[in-house]
Amino acid sequence: MQRIYFDNAATTPLDAEVLDAMMPYLTTHFGNPSSIYSYGRETRLAVENARKTVAKILGANPGEIFFTSGGTESTNTAVCAAINDLGCERIITSPLEHHATLHTVEHLHKQKGIDLQFVKVSPDGHIDLNDLEKLLSASNKKTLVTLMHANNEIGNITDIHAVGELCKKYNAVFHSDTVQTVGHFPFNLHATPVDFINGAGHKFHGPKGIGIIYISEKNKISPFIQGGSQERNMRAGTENIYGIVGFAKALELATKNYEADKAYICGLKNYMLQQLQNNIEGVSFNGDYAGSSLYTVLSANFPKNEKSELILFNLDINNICASGGSACTSGANVSSHVISAINPNADIDFVTVRFSFSRHNTKEEIDTVVSKLKEII
Amino acid sequence: MQRIYFDNAATTPLDAEVLDAMMPYLTTHFGNPSSIYSYGRETRLAVENARKTVAKILGANPGEIFFTSGGTESTNTAVCAAINDLGCERIITSPLEHHATLHTVEHLHKQKGIDLQFVKVSPDGHIDLNDLEKLLSASNKKTLVTLMHANNEIGNITDIHAVGELCKKYNAVFHSDTVQTVGHFPFNLHATPVDFINGAGHKFHGPKGIGIIYISEKNKISPFIQGGSQERNMRAGTENIYGIVGFAKALELATKNYEADKAYICGLKNYMLQQLQNNIEGVSFNGDYAGSSLYTVLSANFPKNEKSELILFNLDINNICASGGSACTSGANVSSHVISAINPNADIDFVTVRFSFSRHNTKEEIDTVVSKLKEII
Repeated sequence: MQRIYFDNAATTPLDAEVLDAMMPYLTTHFGNPSSIYSYGRETRLAVENARKTVAKILGANPGEIFFTSGGTESTNTAVCAAINDLGCERIITSPLEHHATLHTVEHLHKQKGIDLQFVKVSPDGHIDLNDLEKLLSASNKKTLVTLMHANNEIGNITDIHAVGELCKKYNAVFHSDTVQTVGHFPFNLHATPVDFINGAGHKFHGPKGIGIIYISEKNKISPFIQGGSQERNMRAGTENIYGIVGFAKALELATKNYEADKAYICGLKNYMLQQLQNNIEGVSFNGDYAGSSLYTVLSANFPKNEKSELILFNLDINNICASGGSACTSGANVSSHVISAINPNADIDFVTVRFSFSRHNTKEEIDTVVSKLKEII
Repeated sequence: MQRIYFDNAATTPLDAEVLDAMMPYLTTHFGNPSSIYSYGRETRLAVENARKTVAKILGANPGEIFFTSGGTESTNTAVCAAINDLGCERIITSPLEHHATLHTVEHLHKQKGIDLQFVKVSPDGHIDLNDLEKLLSASNKKTLVTLMHANNEIGNITDIHAVGELCKKYNAVFHSDTVQTVGHFPFNLHATPVDFINGAGHKFHGPKGIGIIYISEKNKISPFIQGGSQERNMRAGTENIYGIVGFAKALELATKNYEADKAYICGLKNYMLQQLQNNIEGVSFNGDYAGSSLYTVLSANFPKNEKSELILFNLDINNICASGGSACTSGANVSSHVISAINPNADIDFVTVRFSFSRHNTKEEIDTVVSKLKEII
């Protein structure tokens, strides 16, 4: 039986066209981009062209885009820079953030005594902007606000313009973890009041092990990884050229087909929602699934019983890939901090499954999965 | 004219067999290794098998090997962990280290007031072990000693067993930057008194953007990059699976052919040395080139004059790739800190060119390069 892959928020298959773009750099064009001779100049050119492509698509200056090893390194870079270089003494975040953010801010809180505050979230998983303003106005300490653009587990999208305006008003630094939206959402960073965002190639059919950080040109920070003068002294280490070229190509393709892909994938999400509602008794959904939400992610709750507790196991046996929470924590086999934060009883009452889609999925696959779910439950 | 690539210490072409091993993970095997279903299990297995291969070759336990984005991240991890987690309040290093080390220790010195001391080096580029012991014995402060195994510019090899024994005697933590020796030198870490070493895939015909850090199991440290539970909570971020698989394959091939490759490449180095001596008046060599030195690296000094100042430029015009210093700094176009440290007048008297070889080079290429050098000078 053909595998059905409904876990595209965890990672996506590399697009064949992206791999084609990477191949010359995996074979003949192998020079170190820091070398001044021909082999080095051709890879240097590839890196700088990739940077220009990414900058143009995101509405940023090329000098504001830096390549890293992935979204997690980028988040670490942004959060640490806000504390170490921009003088922030307080962090405001939310309990729904990815562990890349939460573990970093908790580490800084414990190690450096940085104030750490959590903004309230509504039961449908949105940030309470009034509470954010209340927190911001309650202290004169220079503050980092780090709030993700779209939640990787429930799909909720935060209005980063509104958050950014509040941050401007209170002179706070704003980092948004945009790993789930870069490649899935149109950006114009010139017109967005944000200091740092980050992206990961493998979330939109690009390669793993490569990411970006956008650093608004008004922020002067020191590198997170020290060493050579790569990335204009901002990120040391010989460049992952194939990764960089692949990241830019994947973003280019994602942008080129954005409207069509979005409409198609959104159709899949809504179809799955409908089919689950029609076929599975007691199913419910997490977050603002019909409102301000990723078109790629659908988080479903199945009433807990002996059978539903084995849903993921039985889906896997039937060659269907879906996840309980985020992939980054599923190895740890603990319940989702995101679901618990919006519904403290979720773990007792429900089994949560995240289905996340890409342009490679079909309605037929959804029919198969829903019919298997009926069998399983 | 065919390009001649004599800059293998900067980076090496990816071996076709390594790319073959990576290809399944660039195409069908794309699952997130943290996912619990079939796609995830097959990539998790690949990552763990790669770890076992690397550990076996280096004489370490699999639990001591962690994959990172490269040698520079690994060095940052080791040095920062020694200060932040192992309680070191002093660092002893040498002026010949790679910038990954020097910039990191200088940053810690400035930011955290960590004592920073430099061990003396001899004019032929070796660490003065008596001076190291003098420094170690002069203070009771817990100390990190960070000294590279082989120098990337002049090739000198340091006896890391001797350094490690001294570190043990004085209860110091020992990190050795082994980026130029992993894949070029047999290791048995079980029998080597070292706390941390690091490697980079692209230095031995593996991929760029991937490295390892060995952390001796007696050291409990916190991650440098915070977030998900990857690499047993030691290095967060979705794994660069192709990179990891490629790293292990490249190390396997390097080890399999070690004796033959070493003999062949050493023959090239000695032939080049001889041909330069026979054909270029006034040529001299840096470091302990005929003694304890990498078989891959030959650092030559050409008497400075109008013509020799353009050596690299003219070699490049003739499609010959060689470098002035390390690639990581050549973008910055400043003179080498390594050469200046062993010969303060080097910059006035000489033009230094590093030739570095791989198994893909030939004596015929050396003949061509030496004859071009005669023309140029």
